[in-house]
Amino acid sequence: MSRHKIKFLPHNKEITVMHGENLIRAAMEAGVHINASCGGEGVCGKCRVIIENGSVEGGITEKLSKKDIEKGYRQACMTSVQSDLVVRIPVESEVDISVLNLQKTPRRKAQIWEMNLEELKDKGLFMPPVEKKYLELPEPTSQDNLPDVTRLISFLKAKHGEHRLVVQLPVIRKISDILRKDGFRVTATLARPVHSGRKTHIINIQPGDTTDRNYAIAVDIGTTTVYSQLMDLITGDVPASYGDYNGQISYGEDVISRIVFADKPDGLQKLHEVVIANINRLIKKMVKRSGIDPDEISTISLAGNTTMTQLMLKVNPKYIRLSPYVPTSTLFAPIRATYLGLSLGDHVTALVYPAISSYVGGDIVAGVMGSGMYLSEEITLFIDIGTNAEIVIGNKDWLACAACSAGPAFEGGGLKFGMRAAKGAIEDFSMDPITLEPMNLTIGNVRPKGICGSGLIIIAATLFEMGVIDNRGKFNRDLDTPRIRETDGIFEYVLAWKHENQIDRDITLTEPDLDNLIRAKGAIYSGCMTLLEEVGLGMGDIDRIFLAGGFAVMWIWKKR
Amino acid sequence: MSRHKIKFLPHNKEITVMHGENLIRAAMEAGVHINASCGGEGVCGKCRVIIENGSVEGGITEKLSKKDIEKGYRQACMTSVQSDLVVRIPVESEVDISVLNLQKTPRRKAQIWEMNLEELKDKGLFMPPVEKKYLELPEPTSQDNLPDVTRLISFLKAKHGEHRLVVQLPVIRKISDILRKDGFRVTATLARPVHSGRKTHIINIQPGDTTDRNYAIAVDIGTTTVYSQLMDLITGDVPASYGDYNGQISYGEDVISRIVFADKPDGLQKLHEVVIANINRLIKKMVKRSGIDPDEISTISLAGNTTMTQLMLKVNPKYIRLSPYVPTSTLFAPIRATYLGLSLGDHVTALVYPAISSYVGGDIVAGVMGSGMYLSEEITLFIDIGTNAEIVIGNKDWLACAACSAGPAFEGGGLKFGMRAAKGAIEDFSMDPITLEPMNLTIGNVRPKGICGSGLIIIAATLFEMGVIDNRGKFNRDLDTPRIRETDGIFEYVLAWKHENQIDRDITLTEPDLDNLIRAKGAIYSGCMTLLEEVGLGMGDIDRIFLAGGFAVMWIWKKR
Repeated sequence: MSRHKIKFLPHNKEITVMHGENLIRAAMEAGVHINASCGGEGVCGKCRVIIENGSVEGGITEKLSKKDIEKGYRQACMTSVQSDLVVRIPVESEVDISVLNLQKTPRRKAQIWEMNLEELKDKGLFMPPVEKKYLELPEPTSQDNLPDVTRLISFLKAKHGEHRLVVQLPVIRKISDILRKDGFRVTATLARPVHSGRKTHIINIQPGDTTDRNYAIAVDIGTTTVYSQLMDLITGDVPASYGDYNGQISYGEDVISRIVFADKPDGLQKLHEVVIANINRLIKKMVKRSGIDPDEISTISLAGNTTMTQLMLKVNPKYIRLSPYVPTSTLFAPIRATYLGLSLGDHVTALVYPAISSYVGGDIVAGVMGSGMYLSEEITLFIDIGTNAEIVIGNKDWLACAACSAGPAFEGGGLKFGMRAAKGAIEDFSMDPITLEPMNLTIGNVRPKGICGSGLIIIAATLFEMGVIDNRGKFNRDLDTPRIRETDGIFEYVLAWKHENQIDRDITLTEPDLDNLIRAKGAIYSGCMTLLEEVGLGMGDIDRIFLAGGFAVMWIWKKR
Repeated sequence: MSRHKIKFLPHNKEITVMHGENLIRAAMEAGVHINASCGGEGVCGKCRVIIENGSVEGGITEKLSKKDIEKGYRQACMTSVQSDLVVRIPVESEVDISVLNLQKTPRRKAQIWEMNLEELKDKGLFMPPVEKKYLELPEPTSQDNLPDVTRLISFLKAKHGEHRLVVQLPVIRKISDILRKDGFRVTATLARPVHSGRKTHIINIQPGDTTDRNYAIAVDIGTTTVYSQLMDLITGDVPASYGDYNGQISYGEDVISRIVFADKPDGLQKLHEVVIANINRLIKKMVKRSGIDPDEISTISLAGNTTMTQLMLKVNPKYIRLSPYVPTSTLFAPIRATYLGLSLGDHVTALVYPAISSYVGGDIVAGVMGSGMYLSEEITLFIDIGTNAEIVIGNKDWLACAACSAGPAFEGGGLKFGMRAAKGAIEDFSMDPITLEPMNLTIGNVRPKGICGSGLIIIAATLFEMGVIDNRGKFNRDLDTPRIRETDGIFEYVLAWKHENQIDRDITLTEPDLDNLIRAKGAIYSGCMTLLEEVGLGMGDIDRIFLAGGFAVMWIWKKR
C-alpha cells in the first residue's frame, strides 16, 4: 500500500501515513490539535479543516455549507487521505502550543513506539513453534511399499534433514486419504520442541501446498480481561484480535477471592469452564472475523498469572494463598488443546507459559520472552499493567521481578465512565490550551461511550501538562470553561456532551477518577522503586521501558 | 503354598502338585488316564479311584456306596489334594498304555511347557513400562518454598538419579492435595520411555507407600477373539483374565470384510466403537473379579494384527486391501488411554505394539518381544495361532516372517460343538486305548458345553495316536464302541452323552470337524514350510517352537 505525506498549516508539521488513513488520526499522530468532541462520527461538526492541496475522500457533511465545501472545508474525522496533502487548520479551532508559555509542569519527552514483527525478526525473537513444509513424496509401488507414515518420515529425514519425528494419531487418521488427494503432494505441519534436541511432532497434514497459510493464537488471561490475537505466522499480521472481561469476575473480582471460590464444591470446575468458554468465544469471533479456515490454526499459546494459569488448567490454586505460598506447578508440558476443552482442531497443541512463583506468573514470562530483554545488554524495565502489575528489571545477565496490586483503573475499572478498550472507548486525546476544548479519538471512530485505560492516561497527562489539574489530580478552580464544573460537590471535566455521545449523559473525567489513577500509578511506581532499590539502581540507570498489558499490547519507551 | 507328591498305582507314575489341586487334573498332568465323561462335576461317576495313603477333601458322592467309601474310593474329579498321596486306579477304569502295542502311528514327543514370570525375569524380558517409587519429600517452609511439582522433580533428581522428567496434567491437578494427605510421603508412578534417553513421565501420585500395588493390562485384539489379562507387575501374577468374541464379527467375519465395512459411511466409527466397548467390558470384568482399585492400573498394552490395530485406533485400513497394499502406519506413539475411549484412569498411557507390514501385525511383534527370541542364539519358530496365523523364524541375528489364513477352527469356530475357551469347554482329554472311553477335563470343572481350540487339538492327537482316526481324519470303521457312530451319514466320536453335559445333546467330534482342523493345521504347516524354505532351513534345524494365541497364551516346545 502506498504512503502519503501530509503537511499541516499554519505550523508546518509533517507526517507520512498509509493511503486511506483517517485525517483526524493523522493530525493526532502529528501532534496537531483539532477540536473534536464526538470521537470521529461527524456529529459535533467541530473538526473543520481546509484541504489546500491534494485529494481526499469523504468529509462532506450537512454541517458544512456549499460555500464551505467549495473553499475546501472538510470534517477531518470523516475524511480519508488519498494522496499527499496540504491541510490548513482554521484559526478558530487551532492554537500552536509552542507560541504559548502557560505551562509550569514538565512536558512529555522520550520516544515511544509499538513493537512490530520486523523488529522481532531482526532481534531473533520470531520463533514460531510450528512450521509448514511442502513435500512431493514418491508414490508407493509394489517395490516401494512403505507404510504411508514411514514414507513421510523417511522423506523428511532424507530430504529435509529432520530427525526425532513423531506422528500424532489425528494425523495418522487422515494421512492415507490426504496423500492420495493430490498425487502424494502434501504440506506437513511440524511442531518444534520447546527444548532443542527433543522430538518434533508432525501435527497436521494437508493436500497440496498450503505453506502460505499458517496461523497461531495467543491468549493473555488476565484477572479482569482475557485478550486474544490471531496471528499470521507467515506475514506477522494480526488478522483479528478480541478482548473480553474474564467471565470469572462474577465469582470474585481479584485473585484471592477466585482462589477462595475455587476451593468451594465444584468451584474449580466452574472457574475452569468459564474461562475456557471465554477463550472459545474469542477464538470463534477471531475465526469469523478473519475468515480463515480453522484447520490452518496450528498452535495456541496461553499466558496468565499463576492463579489464572492454574484455574485455566483446572489445577486448584488454594496453596498459593496459604503459607508458605507455594503454587502447585510453574511448568506445564505441552498439551492437546482439545483436552483442555478448547474449540480448536485435534492437532493443535496448547503451550502454556511457565510461571516463576505464586505471584509472578506466565504472563510476565511471556513478556520477558516477547520483549527479548533477556537477550539485550540494555538495562530494561518491563511493566505488565493490569489489575495486578508485574515488573521485571534486568538484561541478558540478570533479571529481578516484583508484583504489585494496581487495581482495575488501567482497564477502565473504577472510573465513572470507564470501559474496556472496545469500540467507542476514548483512546486518544488532545486539548486546545486556550479554549480547553477536547480532541477525542475513539476506538472504531464512533461517538464515545466511555474512557479506556490508555485514554485515561493520555487525558490525565494532557490535563496535567496544560495546568488544568495539579499533581494531586485536583482541577484548577480558576479556569473559565463550561467543560470544567462541579456536580454534587465533585469537580469534573466534560469530555463529550450527551448529544455528542452514545450514552445520553455527559461523559466526564472526575477527581475521584483521577484519585484512582494516581493510586494505581502510585502502586506501580512504588513497585518499580522498590525493585530498583533492591537491585541498587535508580530511574536514571534504565535504558528503556517496555509496557505491556491489555491496554498497551507492547510499547517501548526509550531515552532520547 | 505347600506342594504334595502323588504316586499313581499300579504304574508308579509320580507328580508334584499344589495343595488343593483337583485329583483328576493331577492324573491328567501325570499322564494317567481315568475314565471321565462329564468334565469333572461328579455326574458320570466313572472316575473312581482308591486313596491308599494320605489325606484328601471331597470326592464322596451318591454314586459311591458306604462300603466303597470305607475302602477309600473317591470320585477323582471332586477330590482335592491335601497331603502327599498314594492313589490306585482301579483296573476297570485304567489300562497301562505302555503294555499295549496297538499303535502304528507316531507318539507325541518333545517337551512342552507354559512360560512363566520367573523365566521372563531370568531372561531379562521382564521390563514393566511403569515403575513406582516411594518418596519422603521435605515439607515446604518459607525458606524452601519450591512449587509442589518442582519439589517432586528435584527430589527424584537428587535422591534417585532420575532425569528428563515430565509431569502430566492429571498429576499436577491432584499433587498438592496428595502431598499434604500423609506429610509429603507419596508414591510416584513413573512411565519409562520406549527408547532409553527419552523422557520419563510421572503419570500418577498417591499418598503413602503403595509400591506393592502396580497393575497393567494387556490386550490381544484378534479378528475373532479379544483376550485380556490384568497383570500384577510386582508378583507377576495374573489376578484376572477374560476373553470375548470380537464384537466386530457382526460386521464381517474376516479381515477383508471388516476393511470393506470400515469404508462404508460411519463404518470405521462403528468398528472402532465396538472393539473399544469390547475392551472396556473386559477391563470392567477384570477389575471386578480381582477387586483391585482401578487407580492402581498404570498402563495398558494393545496388540493386534495391522487391520485390528488400525480399527482400534480409528485409522481407516482401506489401503491395506488395495495394491500395493500399504498400511497407514506401523508405528504409533504412546497415547492417553482415555483419548481412545478406554475406561481407565486419566493417567494411563496406552502402548500400541508396532506392526511390520499390512499382513504382519503388532500381535506377532508382541510375541517376538515377549518370547525373547530376538535375544537368543537358538533358531526359534514362533507361531501365533488365530483366524490368521502369523509365523516368525529366526534368532538374535535375523528374523523372517510369514502370515497365513488358518480359519477359526483353533478358536472353536466352524466345529459342530465348537466354542471359545470359556467355562464348560473341553480343554484336555485322554482316552482308554481298549474301551475308547474318554477322560474330559473342562474349563472350570463343570459339565461340558463344547470343545475349544486346545481341546480339539488334544482330542484329535489322541484319536490319531490310538489309531481311532487315520491321517486323513477318517474314523476306523472297524472299532466296536457306541462312542463312534454314524449320524446322517457322518461319522463322529461321542465325547459326552447328553445326560452328562449341559446342552442336552450328545457332544461329538465329527469328521467334518476334523477336516476343518486338518485344513487349518495344513495352512499353518504350509506357512511354516514356505517360510523355512525361504530361509534355507528344514524342520530339523528348529531348536524350539513358541506357540501363542487366544487358546495357547504362550507355550514352548523344545527338542528333547
